[in-house]
Amino acid sequence: MTSRFQLSWTVGPASSPDATPARRVPAAVPGAVQLDWARAEGWPPYWQGDNCRAYAWMEDVYWIYTARLDLPPRTGRKRLFFVCGGVDYQFVARLNGAVLHEQEGMFTPFEIDLTAHKARTGDTLDIVVFPAPKCHAEPADRTQARESVKPAVSYGWDWHPRLIPLGIWEETFLEVRPAAHLRDAETDYELSEDFSTATVAAVVVASPAARRGRVRWTFTAPDGTELFHEEARVGPEGTVRFSRTLDRPMLWWPHDHGRPALHTATVELFAADGRRIDMRTQRVGFRRVRLVMHEGAWSRPATFPVSRNHPPITVEINDRTIFAKGSNWVNPEIFPGLVTAETYRPLLQLARDAHFNLLRCWGGAPVNKEAFFDQCDELGLLVWQEFPLACNLYGDDPRYLRVLDQESRSILRRVRRHACRAIWGGGNELFNAWSGMTDQAKPLRLLDRNCLELDPDTPFLPTAPLDGMGHGDYRFRDESGREVYQIYAAAANTAYSEFGCPGPSSVEYLKTIIPADQLFPPRPGTAWQTHHGLGAWEVEPTAWLCLDTLRHYFGEAVSLEEIVARGGWLQSEGYKCIFEEARRQKPRCAMALNWCYNEPWPTAANNSLVNWPARPKAAYAAAASSCRPVLASARLPKFSWHGNERFAAELWLLNDSDDELPPGQVVASVEVGGETIALLTWSHGAVAPNRNLAGPAVHCMFPTHAAADRCTLVLRCPAAAHRDSTYTLAYLPFPAP
Amino acid sequence: MTSRFQLSWTVGPASSPDATPARRVPAAVPGAVQLDWARAEGWPPYWQGDNCRAYAWMEDVYWIYTARLDLPPRTGRKRLFFVCGGVDYQFVARLNGAVLHEQEGMFTPFEIDLTAHKARTGDTLDIVVFPAPKCHAEPADRTQARESVKPAVSYGWDWHPRLIPLGIWEETFLEVRPAAHLRDAETDYELSEDFSTATVAAVVVASPAARRGRVRWTFTAPDGTELFHEEARVGPEGTVRFSRTLDRPMLWWPHDHGRPALHTATVELFAADGRRIDMRTQRVGFRRVRLVMHEGAWSRPATFPVSRNHPPITVEINDRTIFAKGSNWVNPEIFPGLVTAETYRPLLQLARDAHFNLLRCWGGAPVNKEAFFDQCDELGLLVWQEFPLACNLYGDDPRYLRVLDQESRSILRRVRRHACRAIWGGGNELFNAWSGMTDQAKPLRLLDRNCLELDPDTPFLPTAPLDGMGHGDYRFRDESGREVYQIYAAAANTAYSEFGCPGPSSVEYLKTIIPADQLFPPRPGTAWQTHHGLGAWEVEPTAWLCLDTLRHYFGEAVSLEEIVARGGWLQSEGYKCIFEEARRQKPRCAMALNWCYNEPWPTAANNSLVNWPARPKAAYAAAASSCRPVLASARLPKFSWHGNERFAAELWLLNDSDDELPPGQVVASVEVGGETIALLTWSHGAVAPNRNLAGPAVHCMFPTHAAADRCTLVLRCPAAAHRDSTYTLAYLPFPAP
Repeated sequence: MTSRFQLSWTVGPASSPDATPARRVPAAVPGAVQLDWARAEGWPPYWQGDNCRAYAWMEDVYWIYTARLDLPPRTGRKRLFFVCGGVDYQFVARLNGAVLHEQEGMFTPFEIDLTAHKARTGDTLDIVVFPAPKCHAEPADRTQARESVKPAVSYGWDWHPRLIPLGIWEETFLEVRPAAHLRDAETDYELSEDFSTATVAAVVVASPAARRGRVRWTFTAPDGTELFHEEARVGPEGTVRFSRTLDRPMLWWPHDHGRPALHTATVELFAADGRRIDMRTQRVGFRRVRLVMHEGAWSRPATFPVSRNHPPITVEINDRTIFAKGSNWVNPEIFPGLVTAETYRPLLQLARDAHFNLLRCWGGAPVNKEAFFDQCDELGLLVWQEFPLACNLYGDDPRYLRVLDQESRSILRRVRRHACRAIWGGGNELFNAWSGMTDQAKPLRLLDRNCLELDPDTPFLPTAPLDGMGHGDYRFRDESGREVYQIYAAAANTAYSEFGCPGPSSVEYLKTIIPADQLFPPRPGTAWQTHHGLGAWEVEPTAWLCLDTLRHYFGEAVSLEEIVARGGWLQSEGYKCIFEEARRQKPRCAMALNWCYNEPWPTAANNSLVNWPARPKAAYAAAASSCRPVLASARLPKFSWHGNERFAAELWLLNDSDDELPPGQVVASVEVGGETIALLTWSHGAVAPNRNLAGPAVHCMFPTHAAADRCTLVLRCPAAAHRDSTYTLAYLPFPAP
Repeated sequence: MTSRFQLSWTVGPASSPDATPARRVPAAVPGAVQLDWARAEGWPPYWQGDNCRAYAWMEDVYWIYTARLDLPPRTGRKRLFFVCGGVDYQFVARLNGAVLHEQEGMFTPFEIDLTAHKARTGDTLDIVVFPAPKCHAEPADRTQARESVKPAVSYGWDWHPRLIPLGIWEETFLEVRPAAHLRDAETDYELSEDFSTATVAAVVVASPAARRGRVRWTFTAPDGTELFHEEARVGPEGTVRFSRTLDRPMLWWPHDHGRPALHTATVELFAADGRRIDMRTQRVGFRRVRLVMHEGAWSRPATFPVSRNHPPITVEINDRTIFAKGSNWVNPEIFPGLVTAETYRPLLQLARDAHFNLLRCWGGAPVNKEAFFDQCDELGLLVWQEFPLACNLYGDDPRYLRVLDQESRSILRRVRRHACRAIWGGGNELFNAWSGMTDQAKPLRLLDRNCLELDPDTPFLPTAPLDGMGHGDYRFRDESGREVYQIYAAAANTAYSEFGCPGPSSVEYLKTIIPADQLFPPRPGTAWQTHHGLGAWEVEPTAWLCLDTLRHYFGEAVSLEEIVARGGWLQSEGYKCIFEEARRQKPRCAMALNWCYNEPWPTAANNSLVNWPARPKAAYAAAASSCRPVLASARLPKFSWHGNERFAAELWLLNDSDDELPPGQVVASVEVGGETIALLTWSHGAVAPNRNLAGPAVHCMFPTHAAADRCTLVLRCPAAAHRDSTYTLAYLPFPAP
């Protein structure tokens, strides 16, 4: 069997790839050169105050990693490999100064056969990391990334500081391998149209020295029962193919529609003498994902001239159409080298607990590590994975296309093994004015081609939004005074693949990132701005605190606590409004993904539901409530009400479950200033699976002079309290002017 | 050098591939089995009356072509090949009963090395053509073609009888080749972004026996001047590559924007002793075609939620955006084996004379032969070439995808050598309800991939219409009473890639296809119906004569002559309306292609402009008039006017030329019953290149009781009479009721 050994690295900056760094510091691998340098310098955390600015110079130098080889013992015909999971972004690898490998692109692993290069203890291995890719010096923003496959987010975004990671970001080690070993083993399957059978097939590639060995392929059910195994001689060509057909395979489902059943395929290599010398395992989830036209789409009246219908965006899994609920996943750390399975675990558990079934992994960020997809497989979370293109005009330059081809193939070969993959996306908002790409863009045609070749049965979208889909708004109230209530009731999109409602972080949290003397009132030019509370988004100058909006509803705040409470309130009610309105628009609408789920560092305010690293904000609970499979829901006309005003709302039952709901009741009332105003008891009939039911309108006159600043619409389901809902709205006791 | 010899063929029907035909008839090659049989039987023309029905049984039998080999003399190491340009549709080739080649797909040529198979004089060569592909027995319509790459049109369309050609449809012969010969030679080029240079490159593949020879590559200018030549030894690998950079290359332009300049690349193979033993020539036109967003598209207001803009459909050639004017090309014969260069020549000359610059070669029909593209190259006509998919749900079946892959690659490798190719299209109306395909369909992803690989710089559209584009209407007046005047003024499409206005054929022409006793009045169930004058289109029961519409405007017709005159009038004015309205909508609209240009047999009435085989209808002249690069134009509110009614129209100057128009005048008047009513003289300023100018509205009161049934709006341009326009409208002398 193989064995692994860590190297001990140093790293230092240099002005050219051949220069000797004036200073070397110990390097953590995986990690980032910035983190190594800051550690050696004793700098305070990059995520506090304005500390991130100190890193600017590091973008434009070479960083030379160096390790002295201390070769592990080898016996017999074993070989020594240097194995590297990924270097961010462009680099060369040298042995004693001689270049053995050159690469652009962080997503393609590489390895070097050190035995073939006659490496010896005492030899020097260098990884020379080039300056961050920039296609121009100015403007210093995301457009600098548009000729590379470097994720654009670290060039600065409205919730991400400018801080461009560089360095070895994936597992990297020496590996001693028997001469006979497995080079690759991949198990794939094909489902029959009616799911009655799964034809499972494996392709195993062994090293030439394994030609006299045997391969065993074992397939086990989710409960560990062996379903079958096959054995074969490797033979001179080195490739072994297996195939078996399973009857009535247990399917993999997203958690809210079934069980995410994972089988296990094990491939073992045995020497001629029967010793097991190598092994690979892979989990296999049987599922079929399609994007289909929504119900009713084809019957659109054919008035001439006829154009086409919107492209399909309704997710169908295992022949069942579902409403896709979830969020936009961004990088959970500024430095991908810091990310481990433990980074993902609480975030993904929270996503599942929020009843989310789909995460859109946004193209501005790096593609996640293997642990992310493993956990999504297990948790039953669907993944829409975009390639690393976002909000730029990526061109047709042959060098760029070559790197994109390499990187996308690496990403595809890795991620296609996961049951959770549901959609491939070319990138974010590429067909919008701020990007300027079109359907004719070669990068997107290339990505479609690579997806068709390497993962043909998974849908591909060139970008989002496509026609019919909507992105935005990202505010509770826009500059014309329209609130989320009116904006989304008037919208008629097939999917809301991004919508945002900003909210501040908690007071306790803010105190960890903003110096005490800057905490109140929030002012531009302070850490509030660095951490995206102010001036973050050109369209909304007080983003993401949205102080003007808070002032509009509540008047001037007298404390930080008041800002945080009010902002959290708006964010919570805003997200409830949008998630539920999108669901009400089913089946035309088939998807609601808020922008954004998480964040890579502590923001002062953001559209996120979960603060870095994994702290739910107040709005998280609101989103989770609105994403329950079944709930009583209200369509509200607006947020702020006056005394003596006629209150009105529409009642709904939202059902995304696969079950028929029995007849029942919804009891609606409004609470204001301690008083409860009974509105209506709605006795509804049965509700079909995956269907909503529109109920009656409710209304009442508000009292005046109630001593209250809020009113709450309460919907109770007497026989099913888990479907109860509440909506807390602003109340101004005096009558409207 | 090579020499070619024709074979003498017979053909006969059989019930299985191995059966011996009970009767064999002489076969014309290229041709079709139906034509051979009919000739032998002495049948009357298939295009008269209902004669086409006699061919129904021929769809479902095997047809066995047989030729006795009479081998031409060969000297030295020459080899004998059987070369076949195409067999329609599925077939095997046998030598003395042994299968040497099997194929599905009519667009992929094949050859057999008879020398290698030791063929001798007296041997028998068979081509066994399988029954027409049908994925089901019923319904017997185009849906039978949806699992094959057989063009769907011959399964029956609203202008095409059910008659499915089968047989050898392309040039087929024996060829004696020197052992040393050229296998392939292709010259391609890359233009610099600013067109200052063209890097021309050739890839030449020679047979193994040519390894001691030399290849010469000569490149000549359109006037015959040699621009350069290169020579190289073939060498053992057999492939020779050349490359040269030309400064300021003369560009190829569509005829209305410049000269369609064609260079010539000649590749010659010389034996070691200096004898020339093979040669290939190819014409090369330097051009760059793109589809770009129309002016103003990106500035669409970004109200949230934002979706995407319509995909680009504005043709840019050599950095200049143009308005694409033209028509939809359909198969010019039912039997592609009848088509020669002379079939295309008058049709394409008429298209150019009509100021058309782009033909959409519709996906329902076979891809044209080489002569078509050669002539378009020469005439400066752009070609939008669709693959053979139309109005069907083509699926993901692996067998179908394999044939589509093979056929599309063959089409691409042939057509990509032509300067005229402007757009590749996946097929016709595949994203509409009657087809039911979506962006996720594998056939379309496969075609995009093949285009990207084999012709990466030519735009690809998965289908038409895409979002923003419009197809239809196909009537002068729809069932709700809307006329083309109102329909298109209210439309806002980016391209009108199909629009139709039907009209009858001439009386003289009708007499050649409809028996005398059926001529008047036209009745269903007669040859009028077979030839699509009645009952052709479910949406319009009196299509394509549209008798109800004629009756609406003109009352009951008393003669065939009256029907023909009235129908031709509506078709002419209808096409003028739509072509000019589409042009007025520039730059949002960038394309106007009427449905359809030509037809494969004599229709009684049709949307076509040119009767089979190449006889312009009255509406041809109207379309040609409306497609002049510059003209005075009127936007009319409706077709039919009454005495004492207020007439109104808007004046325009339409300019698709690359020239600025100097200031000038347009004099507008109306003629009715011999009386001329002066309306207005519009003195306009200069008009920018490729820009229209909206002019004033004109109006007048119509007289009553004029002895006339029509009125004519006359626009005169005193200094530029070639821009004059007239519009003839219906006039009812009595006042409106």
